[in-house]
Amino acid sequence: MAPTGSPTMTTRERASLAPAKARELFRNGLSVPTAGFCAGFAQANLIIVPKAQAFDVLLFAQRNPKSCPVLGVLDAGETSSELLAGGDIRSDVPKYVVYENGVKVAEPTDLDQYWRDDLVTFIVGCSFTFETALMEAGISIAHIDQGVNVPMFKSNIRSASAGSMAGPMVLSMRPIPASQVADAVRITSRYPAVHGAPVHIGNPEEIGITDLSAPDFGDPVQIPEGSIPVFWACGVTPQAAVMESRPALAIGHAPGYMLITDAKDSTYLVP
Amino acid sequence: MAPTGSPTMTTRERASLAPAKARELFRNGLSVPTAGFCAGFAQANLIIVPKAQAFDVLLFAQRNPKSCPVLGVLDAGETSSELLAGGDIRSDVPKYVVYENGVKVAEPTDLDQYWRDDLVTFIVGCSFTFETALMEAGISIAHIDQGVNVPMFKSNIRSASAGSMAGPMVLSMRPIPASQVADAVRITSRYPAVHGAPVHIGNPEEIGITDLSAPDFGDPVQIPEGSIPVFWACGVTPQAAVMESRPALAIGHAPGYMLITDAKDSTYLVP
Repeated sequence: MAPTGSPTMTTRERASLAPAKARELFRNGLSVPTAGFCAGFAQANLIIVPKAQAFDVLLFAQRNPKSCPVLGVLDAGETSSELLAGGDIRSDVPKYVVYENGVKVAEPTDLDQYWRDDLVTFIVGCSFTFETALMEAGISIAHIDQGVNVPMFKSNIRSASAGSMAGPMVLSMRPIPASQVADAVRITSRYPAVHGAPVHIGNPEEIGITDLSAPDFGDPVQIPEGSIPVFWACGVTPQAAVMESRPALAIGHAPGYMLITDAKDSTYLVP
Repeated sequence: MAPTGSPTMTTRERASLAPAKARELFRNGLSVPTAGFCAGFAQANLIIVPKAQAFDVLLFAQRNPKSCPVLGVLDAGETSSELLAGGDIRSDVPKYVVYENGVKVAEPTDLDQYWRDDLVTFIVGCSFTFETALMEAGISIAHIDQGVNVPMFKSNIRSASAGSMAGPMVLSMRPIPASQVADAVRITSRYPAVHGAPVHIGNPEEIGITDLSAPDFGDPVQIPEGSIPVFWACGVTPQAAVMESRPALAIGHAPGYMLITDAKDSTYLVP
């Protein structure tokens, strides 16, 4: 039998892990997408830039609150915060992406050889956070059921630019049964800090997405008969801006390989 | 009879002004508190700093979302935006406060002699925005009824610091009849972008406010028999941080003398 924490953990085992335990597994080398891990705890996107670019990134987030809801910002050189108590932002995410001049140059599982004391870390809300609430309402999540990473697409919707940061809005897609789309809107709209309500429902071509089987990030999912593709703003959006804007250095998480925080999903629930 | 736009306008005349017309009156020299003006349109706080301090201010806002909900950020040197169409941020607020090294040095009605091309303007939500909704629910607003500026207090609650920015949370106070306090909470909690729900209800001493008749900003109000003092986070909070943190230059609005924007209150209403 595979050891606890291996990719062969059952769905139930992944869901019941404590965040600190999951981060420890990732720190020790486990590198898998995190959908379905640590039910009830918020997952998050990362974007890490030198202090000189930090204002542009924070302003980009302020101007694009649907795609870039900021949950926390670490001071320059800081490597932990109350969102990952006892953890280390350089090692506790299962996989990172390093960009130089907008080009992906590495996908390391830690940042030991890239870390600098002037790096500022932005922790950005992730839609994995509201998946527990959707499942509790009886809405199946295709990528969890199918054991793959969520599909993500660069849309033709432009983000609001900020200084050097400009790019397309990235969207995550979940197929939802037509009878449950309204429920999915209602439930996710109560989580504005983790992308909130969908930005588009049911007509991918209109937003420049012509092939649902070929996502720009993550994996394709099989769309069940009678389900509608529903698109939520995605925290990979700042990485798409990095790829277009070409700053000298930027670091993100690998899409779908999130930081699992100690914050409960309910922290981000509005009335 | 006083000309339209003079301080002797009736309550009804102030409420029915269009935002662009109110800004024109202020641009032309009218300098009065703006509570009750332009019913249904969002009012806003200002904080203007040199680009070199802009990251600290934006991070301070991100870490203090109750007191500093950012509605918009103008690029360095920019003087207008869609929030004040056709307007000019240097003249359209009825009164400004200029701080040098944390000390108030002037209260001009325009910024002609202070403007620099490296100044970044932050437009921050204001609780005047939800006063229309409170009045529509039958809740009287004492400072409007009494024709004075809202009372604001420096509390003993510390803001989360960010770089060079640290200081106390400033609160606005409205006395609310005990039977309507729950309604006031319910209604204002639906406006998180303009300070949202109260941060304290009914025990001023606990937050370091010992004399309700001596506000730190604005005017005292008479508290009607049977009313409870209710405190909301206030967008003067960044100015309190400026006074404590002493940057070389910072500019705010005079407390209560707000920017009246073209955004409808309903823009900031959540379900």
